[in-house]
Amino acid sequence: MKNYLKGALLLGSLFIVGCSSLVEKKEQANIIIKNGTLLTMNDKREIIENGVIVIKNNKIISIGNEDLLNKYTANKVIDAEDGIIMPGMINTHTHASMSVFRSLADDVPDRLNRYIFPLENQMVSPEMSYLGAKHGAMEMALGGVTTMVDMYLFEENSAEAVKEVGLRGVMTQNIIKYPTADGKEKGETLNRAVAFVEKYKNDELITPGFGPHGPHTVTKEELLKIKELSKKYNVPVSMHVAETDVEFNKIKKDYKMTPVEYLDSLGLLNERFIAAHNIFVTDSDIELMKKRDIGIAHNMVANIKSAKGISPALKMHDMGMRVGLGTDGPMSGNTLDIIGQMGYVAKLHKLDSKDRSALPPKKAVEMATIGGAKAIHREKELGSLEVGKLADVVIVETKSVNMNPIYDPYSALVYSANASNVDTVIVNGKLIVEDKKIKTVDSKKVIKDITEFKEKVQKVAETL
Amino acid sequence: MKNYLKGALLLGSLFIVGCSSLVEKKEQANIIIKNGTLLTMNDKREIIENGVIVIKNNKIISIGNEDLLNKYTANKVIDAEDGIIMPGMINTHTHASMSVFRSLADDVPDRLNRYIFPLENQMVSPEMSYLGAKHGAMEMALGGVTTMVDMYLFEENSAEAVKEVGLRGVMTQNIIKYPTADGKEKGETLNRAVAFVEKYKNDELITPGFGPHGPHTVTKEELLKIKELSKKYNVPVSMHVAETDVEFNKIKKDYKMTPVEYLDSLGLLNERFIAAHNIFVTDSDIELMKKRDIGIAHNMVANIKSAKGISPALKMHDMGMRVGLGTDGPMSGNTLDIIGQMGYVAKLHKLDSKDRSALPPKKAVEMATIGGAKAIHREKELGSLEVGKLADVVIVETKSVNMNPIYDPYSALVYSANASNVDTVIVNGKLIVEDKKIKTVDSKKVIKDITEFKEKVQKVAETL
Repeated sequence: MKNYLKGALLLGSLFIVGCSSLVEKKEQANIIIKNGTLLTMNDKREIIENGVIVIKNNKIISIGNEDLLNKYTANKVIDAEDGIIMPGMINTHTHASMSVFRSLADDVPDRLNRYIFPLENQMVSPEMSYLGAKHGAMEMALGGVTTMVDMYLFEENSAEAVKEVGLRGVMTQNIIKYPTADGKEKGETLNRAVAFVEKYKNDELITPGFGPHGPHTVTKEELLKIKELSKKYNVPVSMHVAETDVEFNKIKKDYKMTPVEYLDSLGLLNERFIAAHNIFVTDSDIELMKKRDIGIAHNMVANIKSAKGISPALKMHDMGMRVGLGTDGPMSGNTLDIIGQMGYVAKLHKLDSKDRSALPPKKAVEMATIGGAKAIHREKELGSLEVGKLADVVIVETKSVNMNPIYDPYSALVYSANASNVDTVIVNGKLIVEDKKIKTVDSKKVIKDITEFKEKVQKVAETL
Repeated sequence: MKNYLKGALLLGSLFIVGCSSLVEKKEQANIIIKNGTLLTMNDKREIIENGVIVIKNNKIISIGNEDLLNKYTANKVIDAEDGIIMPGMINTHTHASMSVFRSLADDVPDRLNRYIFPLENQMVSPEMSYLGAKHGAMEMALGGVTTMVDMYLFEENSAEAVKEVGLRGVMTQNIIKYPTADGKEKGETLNRAVAFVEKYKNDELITPGFGPHGPHTVTKEELLKIKELSKKYNVPVSMHVAETDVEFNKIKKDYKMTPVEYLDSLGLLNERFIAAHNIFVTDSDIELMKKRDIGIAHNMVANIKSAKGISPALKMHDMGMRVGLGTDGPMSGNTLDIIGQMGYVAKLHKLDSKDRSALPPKKAVEMATIGGAKAIHREKELGSLEVGKLADVVIVETKSVNMNPIYDPYSALVYSANASNVDTVIVNGKLIVEDKKIKTVDSKKVIKDITEFKEKVQKVAETL
């Protein structure tokens, strides 16, 4: 009996070992998100119910349904709880640091000359650029933005803040022909831009670039230099284009060309160029912009708040151009999330074209995600949830009263949601927002700092 | 020594008693809100920093600064923590029950006939009217709406739900010439309206009324009856007016009048009348509407989402007319809060008039509060924070990232805030939202019920 028992135990042990080796070992990942409606925004615009996405390091390594849970394991498994899992949104145009001035002197005519430039000359500093960008990047992260295209003064300091928050940033140093807080002398802002590009050119999150302010606010000589430098360093150029009638008329008068034709005559329009606003463009301008394959940043909220008009961005999108959405700065559009923009963009183009089916919700989500990635010429890495792409992922919760019911996830995102419905944000494989709270920086400290800074601004503003 | 000590103690005791009787006894209230920026929206549009508001039963009994804390005590003292204390917002036009259909078939041309009417004929019931209104009223409460003007089928059941949530409702039973789920026979919906008015005419929160659907969708005979009944019971009439070109052309063809002229010819336009939409109105229509002193419900988001156009409501407001804001139903505008409407209204009228100073934030807040109260002819009781008015009060928190900084509270409300920034809501002296959570009903249960109802709707929608 005893020997028989020993033999049985031995056999049993061998059996267990044998079975264990038959069970396939799960592959180790870093983050798994499960249990949501997954909007891939891939070419087929596939939607996966009970979707699962697997993230390893900074990449998406698998996407599918709950079967993937048998194949992968991860340190962090996030239950989306029937939420919407979508690509991180891309804000293709902003000036995040201007967050410190938000809600100041709204709607004042000629505000740029009357308030903004004088304020900036007195109040902008490396510290301000850092503080405002930190606050702005926090707001974007909390609203589901994972990549931002920025243009401002002391951009190096903004970039530092954006990195701390953990956003992906296409950060461009502002270049302008007037003396500024970060460039008293001629050529100083351009030199600053070159130094900034040099410093950040190999950064994982920050793509540095050049930010010429506008066709009429930068000298022709500097624009030509920027064209060369952008080519030399292979970095983006972000610029306000055809934003105001003042600009349009000035360029027309000086050069007998539209702003778009003028910039093209200088050789600036190419695959490194991101044009913001594009309101005062002709049909032939649009053809030219398409031919040059430039990126388009469509800033609906800011453009209508300032009564400038509606850019023909829907037409551009439908022509297959690279159209993304932008908030413009927090003094212009006031909010920095892209969810709000989608609602405005969808409705305003319906009004503008007198057609309620003109811009269905899916198209707004396209502009906010893959369209934005195209606008910055990074659609191979960003803008959709696909294997091999960078892991920039957002979960929008659907538990709140305002999100129910959901017959169509695109409709819910565009017509029902607001920025506060964003629950989880992952950038480059790193969790930066969880349970609607920012994890990377101390948000209370930033709000305290910005409130203190406000007191100083108010004193200056009173003198203007 | 001992006797001396006794004497001293006795004198001391007397002194203490004497002092106590000198300290004035604090007056007992129910709720005190302190420590916020208080927007009174009174005639002078006074703003009180470190404002305090005192509520007893269902009324505001005192308003001022922190000195009031020496005068009043209350069972519940709410610290606004630097938030914005403002009058409850008034949603002057909605169909709350349609919440159950939200995000279904958005942007489909001819949706009213293609989807809405067939769906309603199959899906609308007393239970649906109750469930949808409960969900819709919850969303409104959470977004700072304290009074809603509603029009729907089985309105009695909607009213029941709105009472449970604790909102103030001007609830009007839909009357239409077609057979409906709540009126298969001719005259049935009008009879239903009369019974509803009879039942609710003395309710504290619910003001019942008549809801003729539109100038071309109700018979002339019934419109004339409604005019008489509204006068007899002294209750409001809420109606879609000049909303579509179809309506305008039909009335023009049949009666050689504009819809506004037609309704006036029937004697309907008076101080009990609330007109929703008002897009297709002529200048002389506007003069007539002003002369008749009717209420105006301006539904910007719904009107542009359906590409109908922009109502000249800013002009009406500036002429001193009674203009409030409305969301329309959740299948039309999709959201039910008025904060979102303020942002759209402020920006769209700037675009429309090509003037960035056209509708400053203060004016949007006026429309959302005292304007709404005027639109329902209840500005003596509602729409501003003033002593003697009903206690409908909202606190919008300013702790969130998106709300900072604040140079101007009106700007922050109109350009920065979203519905999720509403922290506290009091209606008729009762706290119904606290810490962004609804206190009166079980919101999870309502969401569960509406999700189950969605499954049924989906099956029917697939057959359409």
